Amino acid sequence: MDFKEYFPVWNQLNPRQQEVLSAAVSRRTAEKGALLHDGSTDCLGLLVIRSGQLRAYILSDEGREVTLYRLFPRDICLFSASCMMRSIQFDLSIEAEKDSVFWVIPPEVYKELSRQSAALANYTNELMADRFSEVMWLIEQIMWKSFDMRLAAFLLRESELEHTATLKITHEKIANHLGSAREVVTRMLRYFQSEGMVALSRGTVDITDIKKLQLLAEKNTPR
Amino acid sequence: MDFKEYFPVWNQLNPRQQEVLSAAVSRRTAEKGALLHDGSTDCLGLLVIRSGQLRAYILSDEGREVTLYRLFPRDICLFSASCMMRSIQFDLSIEAEKDSVFWVIPPEVYKELSRQSAALANYTNELMADRFSEVMWLIEQIMWKSFDMRLAAFLLRESELEHTATLKITHEKIANHLGSAREVVTRMLRYFQSEGMVALSRGTVDITDIKKLQLLAEKNTPR
Repeated sequence: MDFKEYFPVWNQLNPRQQEVLSAAVSRRTAEKGALLHDGSTDCLGLLVIRSGQLRAYILSDEGREVTLYRLFPRDICLFSASCMMRSIQFDLSIEAEKDSVFWVIPPEVYKELSRQSAALANYTNELMADRFSEVMWLIEQIMWKSFDMRLAAFLLRESELEHTATLKITHEKIANHLGSAREVVTRMLRYFQSEGMVALSRGTVDITDIKKLQLLAEKNTPR
Repeated sequence: MDFKEYFPVWNQLNPRQQEVLSAAVSRRTAEKGALLHDGSTDCLGLLVIRSGQLRAYILSDEGREVTLYRLFPRDICLFSASCMMRSIQFDLSIEAEKDSVFWVIPPEVYKELSRQSAALANYTNELMADRFSEVMWLIEQIMWKSFDMRLAAFLLRESELEHTATLKITHEKIANHLGSAREVVTRMLRYFQSEGMVALSRGTVDITDIKKLQLLAEKNTPR
């Protein structure tokens, strides 16, 4: 198994700890769309991503979503083990956004190893600070950027992630990423289309003027 | 010095580590309104609060503010030592909201002790998860609550903190807490006044119907 190549602090654990971790880790797969973690009710464990892509998001009582961040190969998903730390007082959901392969580290094993190893505990700090930074970025977007800027930035980010200017994504899905309503997304996309920035067809958003979209995304005005 | 009574992991450090920490810690005071930390440009250290109240907030390029959270006696301020962790990639500001007394732990000393002590590193994790939870709460407020609900919740929170129904606060200050504009706050407060929930006078917001304000704050509708 190549777990240790994906787990950056492996070499800072002692042989005994490595053994415990090896024995506890299990490899899993998830199909695109599978829900891996649903609020605070479950506690799957830490996920070390081998391939694919996960999405962490929050959900309102009314079923609206906002994407918090994505996890890519070699990323580690901490909040699917939220029971591990009593100070984690919020619910988030995690789904496989692409077919994914990952390892699961049981929360009690990770917690015990953290108790023993300062290196592992400090690594957890860096992971949490990473996610914290992404969430702070999101707050700044929500607070200081208008919706057209956020939508433009989202389309550019998706295009970069998927390596294509032709995004296969519904207006509903975009709304879920941005915590908005489908109608609002449709209206804004039609405006983008009228400005020549995108071309719309069923289930597809085609970026036709990336420069103009970038200019819009980077415009710095308060909402 | 009573630092050790305010520092929860003191007893989990060994005598040598306690000695290093004692020698490094310095006690400081700050007057109400003093700016203690300004974005990522400085790195004061960790603050252990003895008395008073600190406020952590973010600032837009245009000078608008949003309050992220408050720190009270026995709280520990981590992000004033953001240079300690390379993954902290965001700027926040910290000011004394009341006259405050606190200890400063130099970042390099805290970092070295964390490297040695898993207990301290795990404690830092709990601190960060605490702040993370507050910031997640804020995102949910911004995304799912309308401005009238956020303003009502803010007034109730302030009233609880200050143990009074008569809040000495300007509309400008309220706007800074909520990331809004003064005019928007004034308009909404006038509406609250017309509904009998508050009475306004220069520099003062008087809560006159706390029940009605609570009902408004708890109403659960998407914006």
